[in-house]
Amino acid sequence: MTKMLKGIAASDGIAAAKAYMLVQPDLSFSETSIDDPEAEIKRLDDAVEASKSELELIKQKATENLGEEEAKVFEAHLMILADPELLGQIKDKIKNDKVNAEAALKSVTDMFIEMFEAMTDNAYMQERAGDIRDVTKRIMSHLLGVTLPNPALIQEEVVIVAHDLTPSDTAQLDRNYVKGFITDIGGRTSHSAIMSRTLEIPAVVGSGSATTDIQEGEMVIIDGINGDALVDPTDAELADYKQKAAEFAAQKEEWARLKDAKSVSADGKEVLLGANIGTPDDVLGANDNGAEAVGLFRSEFLYMNSNELPTEDEQYEAYKAALEGMSGKQVVVRTMDIGGDKELPYLPLPEEQNPFLGYRAIRICLNRQDIFRTQLRALLRASKYGRLAIMFPMIATVQEFKDAKAIFEEEKANLVASGVEVSDDIQVGMMMEIPAAAMIADKLAKYADFFSIGTNDLIQYSMAADRGNERVSYLYQPYNPSILRLIKNIIDASHKEGKWTGMCGEMAGDQIAVPLLLGLGLDEFSMSATSILKTRSLIKKLDSKEMKELADKAVSDCETVDEVVSLVKEFTK
Amino acid sequence: MTKMLKGIAASDGIAAAKAYMLVQPDLSFSETSIDDPEAEIKRLDDAVEASKSELELIKQKATENLGEEEAKVFEAHLMILADPELLGQIKDKIKNDKVNAEAALKSVTDMFIEMFEAMTDNAYMQERAGDIRDVTKRIMSHLLGVTLPNPALIQEEVVIVAHDLTPSDTAQLDRNYVKGFITDIGGRTSHSAIMSRTLEIPAVVGSGSATTDIQEGEMVIIDGINGDALVDPTDAELADYKQKAAEFAAQKEEWARLKDAKSVSADGKEVLLGANIGTPDDVLGANDNGAEAVGLFRSEFLYMNSNELPTEDEQYEAYKAALEGMSGKQVVVRTMDIGGDKELPYLPLPEEQNPFLGYRAIRICLNRQDIFRTQLRALLRASKYGRLAIMFPMIATVQEFKDAKAIFEEEKANLVASGVEVSDDIQVGMMMEIPAAAMIADKLAKYADFFSIGTNDLIQYSMAADRGNERVSYLYQPYNPSILRLIKNIIDASHKEGKWTGMCGEMAGDQIAVPLLLGLGLDEFSMSATSILKTRSLIKKLDSKEMKELADKAVSDCETVDEVVSLVKEFTK
Repeated sequence: MTKMLKGIAASDGIAAAKAYMLVQPDLSFSETSIDDPEAEIKRLDDAVEASKSELELIKQKATENLGEEEAKVFEAHLMILADPELLGQIKDKIKNDKVNAEAALKSVTDMFIEMFEAMTDNAYMQERAGDIRDVTKRIMSHLLGVTLPNPALIQEEVVIVAHDLTPSDTAQLDRNYVKGFITDIGGRTSHSAIMSRTLEIPAVVGSGSATTDIQEGEMVIIDGINGDALVDPTDAELADYKQKAAEFAAQKEEWARLKDAKSVSADGKEVLLGANIGTPDDVLGANDNGAEAVGLFRSEFLYMNSNELPTEDEQYEAYKAALEGMSGKQVVVRTMDIGGDKELPYLPLPEEQNPFLGYRAIRICLNRQDIFRTQLRALLRASKYGRLAIMFPMIATVQEFKDAKAIFEEEKANLVASGVEVSDDIQVGMMMEIPAAAMIADKLAKYADFFSIGTNDLIQYSMAADRGNERVSYLYQPYNPSILRLIKNIIDASHKEGKWTGMCGEMAGDQIAVPLLLGLGLDEFSMSATSILKTRSLIKKLDSKEMKELADKAVSDCETVDEVVSLVKEFTK
Repeated sequence: MTKMLKGIAASDGIAAAKAYMLVQPDLSFSETSIDDPEAEIKRLDDAVEASKSELELIKQKATENLGEEEAKVFEAHLMILADPELLGQIKDKIKNDKVNAEAALKSVTDMFIEMFEAMTDNAYMQERAGDIRDVTKRIMSHLLGVTLPNPALIQEEVVIVAHDLTPSDTAQLDRNYVKGFITDIGGRTSHSAIMSRTLEIPAVVGSGSATTDIQEGEMVIIDGINGDALVDPTDAELADYKQKAAEFAAQKEEWARLKDAKSVSADGKEVLLGANIGTPDDVLGANDNGAEAVGLFRSEFLYMNSNELPTEDEQYEAYKAALEGMSGKQVVVRTMDIGGDKELPYLPLPEEQNPFLGYRAIRICLNRQDIFRTQLRALLRASKYGRLAIMFPMIATVQEFKDAKAIFEEEKANLVASGVEVSDDIQVGMMMEIPAAAMIADKLAKYADFFSIGTNDLIQYSMAADRGNERVSYLYQPYNPSILRLIKNIIDASHKEGKWTGMCGEMAGDQIAVPLLLGLGLDEFSMSATSILKTRSLIKKLDSKEMKELADKAVSDCETVDEVVSLVKEFTK
């Protein structure tokens, strides 16, 4: 009988394929005494040989389908299998202690893992510990006669069913075969969800029970638009799926035709749809998806993919590349947003009890002006290659903005004085992500050229609920009237001073939020590149005056998030 | 020459006395080889004997001046000194390894400390580790011929100079001799500051350099009103101090006369001044200081001073005692506020990356309804003994308040149905400490009977700055216009629905904040009992209409906290 699973719509689209269970099998065993060590050593050797052949196949497939970089981890695993010392110690243990191969394997590898993991300041050794753990699992699976999931070996169309997807899981997935995801846990901003949108694979996350309700090989329909899944569907349901998939494909075609269109509402109100990018390479995807701007260029990649602070020239090249890539369209660069959950190995920060409420972003930059000034100089020097805007993250007070802006002006004056060409219309704005700043948006609007609302942080601080904490995830409520009021306050304040407001959090591309944001008067929506065309299509269908009525009603009348969602559905049906 | 130190005014009053340096001496040593183990063992025995006499004296003094409870720690130290195994091992090490007593002492005690500390789930053993560390320090000081600070032995009037004061330091201080504090670090809400107000000892915290700028025995004047200190003052300065101290004493007398007075502004506006209490015993101090209500009864002591969840009857007795003690004056009990930085050994909570943004207070209670319902029943049963009000902490949404209130109504109906006498006018309100709640105060005011603003949390969430994190303490800005606007929004919303708003954070007794809060229309100010009379005296001098003008101006015109402070000074000079 068909089973229906409800979850969170994480990535648009509809898919049907057989379930592939990306679930760890039970690898538990009993330690037993043995009489015949030679037989036991033979079992071990067989399991090692089987693991070797398997890994060689995986490595070859991964190289073909995913590239050499992704395949390297399997090379490392093969090297461990070839290590005579490790295997020798396991065999000695079988002989001396007269225990079964499983027990000897676990005892010896545990010792190596602990030893490597104890070297906490050595990232290389930590990785080796992970590798040994993976290889141990593989040998153990052959000893126990169970099968490990090997996503890299998938050779037919599947829907991946997992408790959660880790970055290393997703690295092994071949887009040609993986048609959809469904996971037990996670929300719209979890790693699996973001990955699924980037890969444009339909996905449902947070279903609660996918891994227990679905069996390997069962047919599964994933509806990533509504956030549900059908397991073992009837023929009628499959036919229905095909129709929905065809409709979705048609819709995607319609969206594609909007690539070079303006973003205009049904009654002619124009807004700007931008892309959030993480590296200059992402400009390609932004342009392919019809971005009219880069609303958020996160500059952290420069700091994080490195063993030391990036030089001024390195940064200059990256900013220049992004500006040139966008050919005169605006690029808003956010200055360094390190701290919180982002650490740098070469910039030791104090241990904090609540890092999200701690020393991060502009708070570091105002203190470590050396780092900040280097970044500003690189930005200023790159500014002549396009239309640059700069924004400061985590501004809480007027004083902080004034201090940051003054440093910018100083660096600009110095460069100009020394004859460097610098654009004369760089806009200098700020992220709006701290409730206190939202409360005095009218004051900040006198100094900032623009605001960009960072909804992820704004919501977590306003609700006092860590967005990564499952226990309080029910409080991550983008449409709560309290959040809408803060957003309204920000937008209204900017307009009163003749400034503009953008949004660069997940909410800007959320299909329930977009009607509200249009109604609240948001000027720029910046989102994952893959959400742009869909959003442009949605905005085309909305009447901005009606949406204003919707937003006013939501802000003044609604008490709860459920009431807001009902109201949006009523206004947009 | 007189040195002037600037810090934060932590506790009112003026004091002058010789400096007592509560600073750890240098206990470093070199490990050396020795030829004569017997001589070294003799050195050790002498140091142990000296430590023993010292500890006996300290124990006796502590018992006399502070009570038996405080003296118990020294009893534990003496038992360690009497432990033959520990001493035996140190002596063996001297003999066998031919090392000096210092090295043997450190090596052996380190081993014991590590062993005890490794038992992380055994609080008793963890404490023993701390005791051994303390005793080791004492023996080491005698071996090295340096002197440990022994605050319990102070026999003359002193001003304590410390980097910071720990709870165990303050437990040893005798109020008869300690006339003032000055510390290097800390703010108005640090442990030292709160302690100094409770003990009514003038204090300056966060001076930055007291321990390096002041020498043992130097005369120090502490001005806890303005937050500064004079070191080695001239005779003229000392005379000036005496006059100021006399003025302050006169002022205190004036305050004392206000004990039974109402809290009324110069133009006749009446407000309520309440006390924050932590246990039913605190009711005594509340009454002595003229409290008109208990604005916050923290119920956590019931949960924290126990090895298991408090029973309904234990709670009932405590609430009854507080209600009876206040003889019909209102007592606002806050339901369980566990989580965040408050853990319970018997209620394991998940490890959280940002506990202040995590699973705490009402979030736990709505999930663990067994705990919540027990507390509500105890409160309901106690309600007939006085004027009870209940408030829920950490409410973020309308839904949470409705859910909590519904559980309360259910328990009330059940008790009434089973014939238990329950007061019919228990007010049910909520803490206002989450920005999202403050933004929809108008909606919440429809359901809550009252609001109580918890400024410590409201400020830390609004500013996204952990109030315990030194690195971002500059953002703890109670008078920032953003915070004042949130407060105004809360008060106005409650009045519009005919409800009232109180405040139970540190801000309610802050002399810069009080004029603003009076102007904003705050109905109830709840604070440390020792701040009540001073605040009543201040309110008597203020004109509520002028303060309204002040508040309106601060809320609409000011951009920064400095501008607000200047404005308050202008309006109240």
